[in-house]
Amino acid sequence: MEIATLRDTHPDHWRLATAIRVLAMDAVAAANSGHSGMPMGMADVATVLFRNHLKFDASAPDWADRDRFILSAGHGSMLLYALLHLTGYADMTLEQVKNFRQWGAITAGHPEYGHAKGIETTTGPLGQGLANSVGFAMAEEHLRARWGAKVQDHYTYVIAGDGCLMEGVSQEAIGLAGRHQLSKLIVLWDNNGITIDGKVSLSDVTDQKARFAASGWDVFECDGHDPADIDRAITEAKASPRPAMVACTTHIAVGSSAQDTSKGHGALTDAQLIADTRKVYGWEHGAFDIPADIKADWEAIGAKGAEERKAWEARIAALAPAKQAEFERIFARDLPKRLTAAIRKVKRDAIETPKKMATRAASEVALKAINPIVTDTMGGSADLTGSNNTRTDDLGAFDVTSRKGRYVYWGIREHGMAAAMNGLALHGGIRPYSGTFMAFTDYARPSMRLSALMGVPVVYVMTHDSIGLGEDGPTHQPVEHLAISRATPNTLVFRPADVVEAAEAWECALEQKTTPSVISLSRQGVAQARTQNTSKNLVSQGAYVLAEAEAKRRVILIATGSEVEIALKARTMLEAEGIGTRVVSMPCMELFAQQDEAYRKRVLPAGPVRVGIEAAMRAGGWDRWLLGERAKKSDFVGMESFGASAPAETLYKKFGITAEATVAKAKALL
Amino acid sequence: MEIATLRDTHPDHWRLATAIRVLAMDAVAAANSGHSGMPMGMADVATVLFRNHLKFDASAPDWADRDRFILSAGHGSMLLYALLHLTGYADMTLEQVKNFRQWGAITAGHPEYGHAKGIETTTGPLGQGLANSVGFAMAEEHLRARWGAKVQDHYTYVIAGDGCLMEGVSQEAIGLAGRHQLSKLIVLWDNNGITIDGKVSLSDVTDQKARFAASGWDVFECDGHDPADIDRAITEAKASPRPAMVACTTHIAVGSSAQDTSKGHGALTDAQLIADTRKVYGWEHGAFDIPADIKADWEAIGAKGAEERKAWEARIAALAPAKQAEFERIFARDLPKRLTAAIRKVKRDAIETPKKMATRAASEVALKAINPIVTDTMGGSADLTGSNNTRTDDLGAFDVTSRKGRYVYWGIREHGMAAAMNGLALHGGIRPYSGTFMAFTDYARPSMRLSALMGVPVVYVMTHDSIGLGEDGPTHQPVEHLAISRATPNTLVFRPADVVEAAEAWECALEQKTTPSVISLSRQGVAQARTQNTSKNLVSQGAYVLAEAEAKRRVILIATGSEVEIALKARTMLEAEGIGTRVVSMPCMELFAQQDEAYRKRVLPAGPVRVGIEAAMRAGGWDRWLLGERAKKSDFVGMESFGASAPAETLYKKFGITAEATVAKAKALL
Repeated sequence: MEIATLRDTHPDHWRLATAIRVLAMDAVAAANSGHSGMPMGMADVATVLFRNHLKFDASAPDWADRDRFILSAGHGSMLLYALLHLTGYADMTLEQVKNFRQWGAITAGHPEYGHAKGIETTTGPLGQGLANSVGFAMAEEHLRARWGAKVQDHYTYVIAGDGCLMEGVSQEAIGLAGRHQLSKLIVLWDNNGITIDGKVSLSDVTDQKARFAASGWDVFECDGHDPADIDRAITEAKASPRPAMVACTTHIAVGSSAQDTSKGHGALTDAQLIADTRKVYGWEHGAFDIPADIKADWEAIGAKGAEERKAWEARIAALAPAKQAEFERIFARDLPKRLTAAIRKVKRDAIETPKKMATRAASEVALKAINPIVTDTMGGSADLTGSNNTRTDDLGAFDVTSRKGRYVYWGIREHGMAAAMNGLALHGGIRPYSGTFMAFTDYARPSMRLSALMGVPVVYVMTHDSIGLGEDGPTHQPVEHLAISRATPNTLVFRPADVVEAAEAWECALEQKTTPSVISLSRQGVAQARTQNTSKNLVSQGAYVLAEAEAKRRVILIATGSEVEIALKARTMLEAEGIGTRVVSMPCMELFAQQDEAYRKRVLPAGPVRVGIEAAMRAGGWDRWLLGERAKKSDFVGMESFGASAPAETLYKKFGITAEATVAKAKALL
Repeated sequence: MEIATLRDTHPDHWRLATAIRVLAMDAVAAANSGHSGMPMGMADVATVLFRNHLKFDASAPDWADRDRFILSAGHGSMLLYALLHLTGYADMTLEQVKNFRQWGAITAGHPEYGHAKGIETTTGPLGQGLANSVGFAMAEEHLRARWGAKVQDHYTYVIAGDGCLMEGVSQEAIGLAGRHQLSKLIVLWDNNGITIDGKVSLSDVTDQKARFAASGWDVFECDGHDPADIDRAITEAKASPRPAMVACTTHIAVGSSAQDTSKGHGALTDAQLIADTRKVYGWEHGAFDIPADIKADWEAIGAKGAEERKAWEARIAALAPAKQAEFERIFARDLPKRLTAAIRKVKRDAIETPKKMATRAASEVALKAINPIVTDTMGGSADLTGSNNTRTDDLGAFDVTSRKGRYVYWGIREHGMAAAMNGLALHGGIRPYSGTFMAFTDYARPSMRLSALMGVPVVYVMTHDSIGLGEDGPTHQPVEHLAISRATPNTLVFRPADVVEAAEAWECALEQKTTPSVISLSRQGVAQARTQNTSKNLVSQGAYVLAEAEAKRRVILIATGSEVEIALKARTMLEAEGIGTRVVSMPCMELFAQQDEAYRKRVLPAGPVRVGIEAAMRAGGWDRWLLGERAKKSDFVGMESFGASAPAETLYKKFGITAEATVAKAKALL
């Protein structure tokens, strides 16, 4: 639809949408950076969505049953900020919009979860929002099944761009949504035909509608500048029994001289261009000047959900008190009180009847105790259920005919899984955990980073965590992946040594409200490390003295996970030679680093030589403990290269990760 | 097709295919691990491919014009090993097959590039082989355009499984191949309907044929057990003017009691099951026993390409000597001799007229000198051409109508780009480099790891390498990505400080024959660091004294890339206070670690206090230089968290990465 026609035929809509466009232009110009074209191009679609469809109440942004709006094309952040400001979100003041992309403002270059209300997820890395949305929509289906439509019944809307659809993770998301018939998921594709390098056709000829349809979506299209047509398409999409994609044909940077060009994708900062565009829009107000009547109309849109929200609150208030409390608990990410006792029981039982087992099996033992109590968990695996030990008997499969199920078969989609877990957690009411082989951290990385950046407490169950997986060989053997997660801010990496540490690690992970965890678990069996029962969670200290020296303490062996067994063996051998040796188990470097120096010094005193043992690269944070923290002489037993394909015991021997090698290195230091 | 019918109607084919099946069963049983079902299920397709279509000569595995065969479903490695053994590849002896998955054998759990001839790429992480194949097919198109069909004219065949097609990277690969009409790329999809967790329908309902067609592929199908039907489909696929996908309907673990089950995906080791399956096959020979006549028939298949290979060699021999030498050079990954002088000229020019510029622009200056000389480079970007500075004027775009072009517009597909770069390099004759924002290392990671594991010298141009990118904010600001690449074995990470170091870094990267490089480059402008011309490549030593102390040396500042400027400023301030300060530029930690201790000691003597400066996490390898290597007191100026959205200068100040902060930390140590 031409601008002139649009202005004439839909004057009310035009004023509302143009307010978004000029705010976006003004903020980008003030920041002298950003992306003008997308907010300008999608303002009409967003206006129709917010005005006619989106269930929300700007005065109650945390309303648990609001529709979720996800801007997957996060570079168009000013679209979102403009909508939040115009509809009256209290924190999104005009001042914040004026400070777009400046230090301390809540209006970051890309929408950052937690900065402002109404930002449902952090976007910018393309495809992530779309893949998050699968988790949001799954959460809604699950909670609706468990709590009824009076408590949960909302849509998840996504605006995605060509970049989102070119990223591979989009296919994983599309496949999952199609498979699970997530009918309340609606993707609005900003089909503007432009990327940074030029036309989309420079790099892609995909028929996106056919592609979505191939994975079980219903597909619609509309003129993305015609409010009536947009409304029709969204209405049809909402009625569809499958996830719906609406291809919205739009003009990037519409109305400006940069319309339909890759220049229009970026920051339009030229004063003349902005003035000319204002003229085309018939907008006679100054920078950041939104006439009161237009603002009032937008605020009315922001308030139109208040009644429905109040009705929902009344329904919640009418629930039985225990149900109300439970609903509040799951959205507050609180743990049921009974968990502590259950974890202690797992530890006690393990110490009473110690068993050799893989730490992935140890994790399963913990999960068997946790899942019946923490009923807001949802587990899953990227097609490695039997290997990751993530499914416990009480979890039914989440499926089209069993939405109450708490176990997701993600398929061979580590990236989509991680992104959807972020969505599940961000939606609220769900604690997602899921597994894959640790080497495939690589596939999940972009979303794992976002878990950390957003501060969502998802749990990554990473099994087969070293050469100890054996014959599958170096492609499957992580050596640098502990380093990768440990180098990432706001991430806890647990590498438990046995059932006791696994239970404690799970307890620590579940206690987090704003930090994701990676639990690193062995494929191969290991002897139980902990032999004395403590009600205290020792893993919560990050590292602790597992076995004290008997002879005069001259050596400290520091080990994690499956290598704690090797440390204990080496200690026995050293003590047999009269060399007093302490073994420190270090299941979580990050938590140990958080302890006060007095505690760290008690665990790692100056004096004794130190040997670190971990079947991974030393780069995974070891130098701090081996060279720093009062260390004098030290050495490391671990990997210096990729692994190899052979039985696990052979590999440990060939790569020199043995008690004998540890003893030799320790003695060489004395 | 039923087995009984197949045996009766195609007895010759049946014996050949069954030899593959029993070898796979026997090897997996002997190893007591592995994947039996895929080789059993795809033996018919592979037999038809190798017997009737694949252009190869087992006696000349490196023939540059051979068809490439890529087993993307790498867990079915025994399919490949059986084919290589049966067709007579000299290194793939029966002994190697018997030692499947054992230490020192070339028959690793998943096919490892470089272990055996005929393994074109390392596969196992799913989707990678399929995405590599895009690079292989691009390389063929490009070399055919440049050298003529008499020199390069071959197909690239891929066997891909359901897992490959569920991984997101497959969509990026499909999109690229469709866009570029890579008509000599043929994907054989092992459509067996089974994954590890159960039926494919448990996690996916995608109509794969419709999906490929949506991206511009031609789609065929066949009964994957009927040799006539398979042959028809492959023949049609070869004739197609677009990339072709053949959906081969197969039975996983065909003929065994585990047929069509997820059990059949894994290791079938039960002796009775194997005996029963042999009976179904009518195979009366013992374990690893291939009758001589069947082996001879297979060896005839392995030899059938010899004539064509010899004819090709004759055509190469008939080329002008200079062309012959050039063809050999590009496949040997040798550099043109002229490069050294060109790099020196870049350095000289830069030192004569020093300029403040972003190191990404410095990299472009180097590329402008390199590309006209090293004409086997192919550059590209994941839709950030203007930001990554990867395109030089002499590079035309690689496109359907301009196959000679050396610049690839990869689209928003970092993962597919990296995987295709691996394919370009593995094919031979091409030196791929391409760019994205460094934070999107995350998207490319699975393929970057494989570059390192395989030892292919691709170059990743990672720009916008810190908070110095400014307003785009934390999603786009790498803080842990230097750590990620530095923790990865066999990877060189360069962080040049100016044009001189950029030129030297590029020279080092291009000299690698078996190691990939990551070049980390700033968005923001920095002052030129190097002021004295040296013909020697100082970056090749990893670190060097950039500025010596004038007063008595009490401080060593160690910095990389854009932070070298800060170190030099801090040095000036410290010297002004009479505190002698050396600045060490450390553009490549890996190369510095490779220097002998005497050199390292000259650069980093004991005594002076040390401060490291890098706008990234300390976990990126800094502890070794700050706590180890004769260090006494030290500190670090860098990041301890994710970044923020604001102008670059503001961020450097707010996060305390300044000359002032450096001076303060250095003085606090004295």
